[in-house]
Amino acid sequence: MQARVGVIMGSTSDWPIMEHAVHMLERLGVGCETRIVSAHRTPELLFDYAGRAAERGLEVIIAGAGGAAHLPGMVASRTPLPVLGVPVESKALNGLDSLLSIVQMPGGVAVGTLAIGKAGATNAGLLAAQIIGNHDSAVREAVEHFRTEQTRQVLEQPDPRDPRDS
Amino acid sequence: MQARVGVIMGSTSDWPIMEHAVHMLERLGVGCETRIVSAHRTPELLFDYAGRAAERGLEVIIAGAGGAAHLPGMVASRTPLPVLGVPVESKALNGLDSLLSIVQMPGGVAVGTLAIGKAGATNAGLLAAQIIGNHDSAVREAVEHFRTEQTRQVLEQPDPRDPRDS
Amino acid sequence: MQARVGVIMGSTSDWPIMEHAVHMLERLGVGCETRIVSAHRTPELLFDYAGRAAERGLEVIIAGAGGAAHLPGMVASRTPLPVLGVPVESKALNGLDSLLSIVQMPGGVAVGTLAIGKAGATNAGLLAAQIIGNHDSAVREAVEHFRTEQTRQVLEQPDPRDPRDS
Amino acid sequence: MQARVGVIMGSTSDWPIMEHAVHMLERLGVGCETRIVSAHRTPELLFDYAGRAAERGLEVIIAGAGGAAHLPGMVASRTPLPVLGVPVESKALNGLDSLLSIVQMPGGVAVGTLAIGKAGATNAGLLAAQIIGNHDSAVREAVEHFRTEQTRQVLEQPDPRDPRDS
Amino acid sequence: MQARVGVIMGSTSDWPIMEHAVHMLERLGVGCETRIVSAHRTPELLFDYAGRAAERGLEVIIAGAGGAAHLPGMVASRTPLPVLGVPVESKALNGLDSLLSIVQMPGGVAVGTLAIGKAGATNAGLLAAQIIGNHDSAVREAVEHFRTEQTRQVLEQPDPRDPRDS
Amino acid sequence: MQARVGVIMGSTSDWPIMEHAVHMLERLGVGCETRIVSAHRTPELLFDYAGRAAERGLEVIIAGAGGAAHLPGMVASRTPLPVLGVPVESKALNGLDSLLSIVQMPGGVAVGTLAIGKAGATNAGLLAAQIIGNHDSAVREAVEHFRTEQTRQVLEQPDPRDPRDS
Amino acid sequence: MQARVGVIMGSTSDWPIMEHAVHMLERLGVGCETRIVSAHRTPELLFDYAGRAAERGLEVIIAGAGGAAHLPGMVASRTPLPVLGVPVESKALNGLDSLLSIVQMPGGVAVGTLAIGKAGATNAGLLAAQIIGNHDSAVREAVEHFRTEQTRQVLEQPDPRDPRDS
Amino acid sequence: MQARVGVIMGSTSDWPIMEHAVHMLERLGVGCETRIVSAHRTPELLFDYAGRAAERGLEVIIAGAGGAAHLPGMVASRTPLPVLGVPVESKALNGLDSLLSIVQMPGGVAVGTLAIGKAGATNAGLLAAQIIGNHDSAVREAVEHFRTEQTRQVLEQPDPRDPRDS
Repeated sequence: MQARVGVIMGSTSDWPIMEHAVHMLERLGVGCETRIVSAHRTPELLFDYAGRAAERGLEVIIAGAGGAAHLPGMVASRTPLPVLGVPVESKALNGLDSLLSIVQMPGGVAVGTLAIGKAGATNAGLLAAQIIGNHDSAVREAVEHFRTEQTRQVLEQPDPRDPRDS
Repeated sequence: MQARVGVIMGSTSDWPIMEHAVHMLERLGVGCETRIVSAHRTPELLFDYAGRAAERGLEVIIAGAGGAAHLPGMVASRTPLPVLGVPVESKALNGLDSLLSIVQMPGGVAVGTLAIGKAGATNAGLLAAQIIGNHDSAVREAVEHFRTEQTRQVLEQPDPRDPRDS
Repeated sequence: MQARVGVIMGSTSDWPIMEHAVHMLERLGVGCETRIVSAHRTPELLFDYAGRAAERGLEVIIAGAGGAAHLPGMVASRTPLPVLGVPVESKALNGLDSLLSIVQMPGGVAVGTLAIGKAGATNAGLLAAQIIGNHDSAVREAVEHFRTEQTRQVLEQPDPRDPRDS
Repeated sequence: MQARVGVIMGSTSDWPIMEHAVHMLERLGVGCETRIVSAHRTPELLFDYAGRAAERGLEVIIAGAGGAAHLPGMVASRTPLPVLGVPVESKALNGLDSLLSIVQMPGGVAVGTLAIGKAGATNAGLLAAQIIGNHDSAVREAVEHFRTEQTRQVLEQPDPRDPRDS
Repeated sequence: MQARVGVIMGSTSDWPIMEHAVHMLERLGVGCETRIVSAHRTPELLFDYAGRAAERGLEVIIAGAGGAAHLPGMVASRTPLPVLGVPVESKALNGLDSLLSIVQMPGGVAVGTLAIGKAGATNAGLLAAQIIGNHDSAVREAVEHFRTEQTRQVLEQPDPRDPRDS
Repeated sequence: MQARVGVIMGSTSDWPIMEHAVHMLERLGVGCETRIVSAHRTPELLFDYAGRAAERGLEVIIAGAGGAAHLPGMVASRTPLPVLGVPVESKALNGLDSLLSIVQMPGGVAVGTLAIGKAGATNAGLLAAQIIGNHDSAVREAVEHFRTEQTRQVLEQPDPRDPRDS
Repeated sequence: MQARVGVIMGSTSDWPIMEHAVHMLERLGVGCETRIVSAHRTPELLFDYAGRAAERGLEVIIAGAGGAAHLPGMVASRTPLPVLGVPVESKALNGLDSLLSIVQMPGGVAVGTLAIGKAGATNAGLLAAQIIGNHDSAVREAVEHFRTEQTRQVLEQPDPRDPRDS
Repeated sequence: MQARVGVIMGSTSDWPIMEHAVHMLERLGVGCETRIVSAHRTPELLFDYAGRAAERGLEVIIAGAGGAAHLPGMVASRTPLPVLGVPVESKALNGLDSLLSIVQMPGGVAVGTLAIGKAGATNAGLLAAQIIGNHDSAVREAVEHFRTEQTRQVLEQPDPRDPRDS
């Protein structure tokens, strides 16, 4: 399947979080590619990847990083594509550093930031599909189907106190 | 101009921040509409607005809110459109409450969150245009032109210490 | 027993915390019902549940949620009943996000917020009973009995250093 | 008018915040009394006031305090009445210390906590009325009227961008 | 041995922390007593204990508490003795709530606050002895001996990299 | 009057805060001396001052500092006297850095920490007097008189809503 | 004078802070150059500047930035020179975001981080001179002279309470 | 090998973090020595070590400490050498206290601060080598080789999703 979303991260240690973005994209029928790209250790690769993403046909880039998380913002500085950032939980500060390093971008270069950790990665995949759904009705329908299904599952959950009834 | 982006906020007191989203959209040639919609004071309006946004032809919703900022997340729960959230600075906690209330969404309903305050509103307008640019080459070009111009302006800034040279 | 308090939460994963509200209500002889209601995944159910709670005879609603915790505030926007919020501890930020998302409500829609986690759930049950105790002397007496008993238990605790006496 | 709610605070310097609780109670037709009671400077008065509040006919106590805010919790330790706490913004830490000192009560003694500052004081008055509304239909109606009116005011707000239409 | 320091805490669950205050006092030859006194669950006991501490011959009170930690400040409101507070680590917020609830006292009632947890309890015992050492030369000498010994132990620690020498 | 308390601070810019410690000591009849001693800029003076404080007849040292506030802890490392620390509010982080730098001392060297800013300085003076009051009955009586007077002033405060009575 | 230190910042709005680095370097006789280089708006310039800094004869780079401050870390990724980072105070979060974005670098690419704001900029200039002083005895002497002078100035400060003596 | 960098820490319990600084220095061929020096427990040793470091031929001092971490700043107050600080993760506050206590130094005495924990210790070793590399071309080359190797390792990492290709 043609990759429409690039899912990148600074290290393989981010994969247990970032794979949830891939799972959501796969579920919604959106092709994606995955790459290890480190802002600090491979800045030239970052520049090249971000600079060529649009012409290579990508529509959204999802970047996950932790600590002084520069990857999403630096990718955004080099591409006209929408960039989504996933703060990966850090050891010492629980991801607060990751979150602030990604979300507090200056005016003029934007990163759409999701929640810290697994929920954020999942939602990055979902939001990428929502973006693509603007011009791809099959993906829009997949998003709507996912959401309907999700609602149904909550509605079918039993009373947590079951079978008691005070 | 046809509104393609809905810019909503909980109160007119949010306008001095949220107008920066509108300014950016206007600069990039993307039509938008503005509405006061309060998650807590007009929940039915919120439901109606979010529920009909896609069929009305909107492509992105930008929602700004402060404190226990529920507007972006509740809008996202009712639409397949991509939703962008702008944390408006709160008096007591400087917008940290607004930021966490918007960004820490559970997996399954996504809000792409921008920075606290004016920079975030500006970037919400920019990111909305980047999203639309995926299927509208005129908007894509406007984004690229804006970015080139922005780079040029930084490059033309004089040495801050000018005319001294230690 | 007639349900006088509705105890709702966004997910069955919140039950190990929220069951402590139920335990306290049971201990104080106050009937309650429990429901899974998600602000983001079942917004229509939330609207319906909150909108009909008063006419169904409920007197207090206790809502527990974590992360960008919108459930208590959105319930409060749809009912004249007093609403109590319990911040459920989140993985990354230890419940600080849950707390701020629940407590920092704008003027005009109120949520009485309790402590993060188990203590907060316990106290939500207690506070609901104190509210009902205003017009139900049996519940008021149960609250007073509980408090007397609690005091007695502390008074009977042995010297922690026992049997030493420096 | 008979006082049904006691609004207490540690110092007259808290009055510019706490008067908003009184304004809301007055608007909703709920009689209240106001007192300066300091947990640290007048502990006997605190004990006496809290210990006699129920027999004196009060139905709710609203306590506002800042910094190491012990007033709401200590009042709650001495009365079966529901106690609502308002964190008053502190100089150095913006009210975060006030909020945590009030909300993080141990299981067994509850304080329903509102937002930091003016919004919290307003909502403490509103929540007290909602509590009383459970057994006083006139107050319940006043709450519902206030909420309807509040919704109407938001709905009547003009488009913030008015008269422009991009 | 005559108790000169009262070491109190809200619950036996605080003992594994607070025992370190007792250990230090014992090491320095200062008699102490220990009591479970809860600000919220046994307010009368708190009042009585604090109110009679000076006449009973105590010279310092050490109070440990967690969460909305009101014990040290309420004791201080009822005694002319110096009061030392130990923030006990809380589950959700790691003791930041305990620390702020103890240290941020208003002008006029003082609590000398130590570090969160075990180090703070140890130092509360040490500081109490330093206070008593002002008028008891045997205790002053014990403090000085402890400090000399402590310094000696650090000086005798081997090179951590031993036996390597790069 | 013989100086019994040393009030030191890192810079004259701390004086508007630290003078409140001096005011309280004067009010309670406790002689004090004041010095500018900087941990970072005059470490030798710090060593000398702290090392000779006990033999010079001081009974308590109060040290105020802001930011990476090392003065109280370093003084404590060089004297058997009780040391009290006052966190001076810093520009960027509102004194949270000052507070944590002072209070989080390791086990074995203690600083009794007061609140951030003016209230903390006031209480440092009060706590120093309470410490001295253990062996100086005139100071003990001055403390008790101050506290009685303080309570009387709160009790005489008018109803803040005066002359209204809802 | 030959530039040995490059002082760069993302925007002219950072100059009122960053000029303090230049002032210190000038005082210590270390030549420097100043440039506006934005990580997000001029990433190519950043790459070029950092990539050529060593061969152009610079010995240290000082980079100041605010919010999601990526400039110091990205410069460090492209040069073997030591890089010092100055967190510029941000509007909403007081520079905590700037600090964490600069200091929390992953292992393998280092930024020596200074304090938030003016003190940090001053110290970046000082630390750069200390680094150069390792191989330039004139600069080492200038550093030592500055430190001696600084100590002298503190020692000459009058008693802050002067002329009173309690 | 001649020690050019002093790696000091307050306690052997810091060694599992600080050894990463030593590992990096060894990898880059920079000789170092290690010492236990406690700001609070061995202040004289600290003074002596720091005061003699330059004449003993050291070129950089790396100091690691946790909690109220005074070691790096106090060392910096006594030496013209560049001092690097490593915040060691604390139990209660996850190293935020350590970080602020090290980085927020007043203007005039500088500490170049690295990240909390292992990454920070690693980078302290790296930055020390970068500093020495300014006047020692073999170390400069070792730094460049390390960085090249590090980049190569990231580039050789397989696609994390391998062998799948959506």
